[in-house]
Amino acid sequence: MTTICSYTIEQYMKMIEDFHGSSAPGLLIGGFMVDLALKNKPECEFYDCICETATCLPDAIQLLTPCTFGNGWLKVINAGRFALTVFDKYNGNGVRVNLSASKLENFPEIKNWFLKLKKKQEQDKDLLFREIIAAGASILDIKEVKVSPDFIGKKKGSKISLCSQCGEAYPVRERDNGKCLICDGLNLYL
Amino acid sequence: MTTICSYTIEQYMKMIEDFHGSSAPGLLIGGFMVDLALKNKPECEFYDCICETATCLPDAIQLLTPCTFGNGWLKVINAGRFALTVFDKYNGNGVRVNLSASKLENFPEIKNWFLKLKKKQEQDKDLLFREIIAAGASILDIKEVKVSPDFIGKKKGSKISLCSQCGEAYPVRERDNGKCLICDGLNLYL
Repeated sequence: MTTICSYTIEQYMKMIEDFHGSSAPGLLIGGFMVDLALKNKPECEFYDCICETATCLPDAIQLLTPCTFGNGWLKVINAGRFALTVFDKYNGNGVRVNLSASKLENFPEIKNWFLKLKKKQEQDKDLLFREIIAAGASILDIKEVKVSPDFIGKKKGSKISLCSQCGEAYPVRERDNGKCLICDGLNLYL
Repeated sequence: MTTICSYTIEQYMKMIEDFHGSSAPGLLIGGFMVDLALKNKPECEFYDCICETATCLPDAIQLLTPCTFGNGWLKVINAGRFALTVFDKYNGNGVRVNLSASKLENFPEIKNWFLKLKKKQEQDKDLLFREIIAAGASILDIKEVKVSPDFIGKKKGSKISLCSQCGEAYPVRERDNGKCLICDGLNLYL
């Protein structure tokens, strides 16, 4: 029986719907991606994840690994590539898994969805999910990678200061002018 | 009895540990913050969230609201302020809740933790959690805000192209040179 990190497809789909709010195709493919990466990652005490897109895939990682956005073990480097890396948090050695555009010839509805060849309302969602389940890991690439030191580990916590404008606590930056980023010009609120 | 979005403190702490991996003080305070924001947000059909820090707080939002990083309803604008905003996704009207540095005089261990006045290993974790539960929403500020249009809604999906270097699918950028962001110089891997 096909499983994703020890869950059945049905169990995993339920987890997706509860957390993500809808049964997104990217999360189902993402499940196969996480599963493949975890089975092939180097032996290590602790691993971190990088996700190369902000869309859907981070939630598969958050559901299936201990890595969440808020605990810092998942980093999102939003390059828009549908790929994730699981790596030893101390030396950066890991595996990268991506959905391969060149492996989709036998799965036309996945290709339509992934390369946006059809508008969302013209896609056949049932067929798309059937193709994803039939394809499993066969549409994925996997390779060994070494993550650059710049993207490993947490930044050392900086000192906390109170913003001279809003009065709120914020982390002091390298070239700091006494204001938090938002008071310093990021117009988040009108 | 004190509750956080209809959960008891014990239930919520269990949810934190299962998802986030540890009982982080920031997630417990974050629970009170989400609770306060949801009780005071404008009536609306759909709401989105902004989190002004990448540390801990996004996980409180992901646990207690339908907004996740992967579904795009949670946006993290990492200014390092311990604050979140819940707002009508169509017009940006919402409420912002932050942990107030000026309301911590009666809660010295929260102050030590929040302003990093003591090293982590010198903090009294039991006392810190007791203070957080005793403080509840009394250490929070809340105000009405209007989120700037720049931070509302999803960006219209761009066309997909195949990177001339790695061959992977990526979203075409405004000034595109045929390469995905990572092949274009973001040295994610060695």
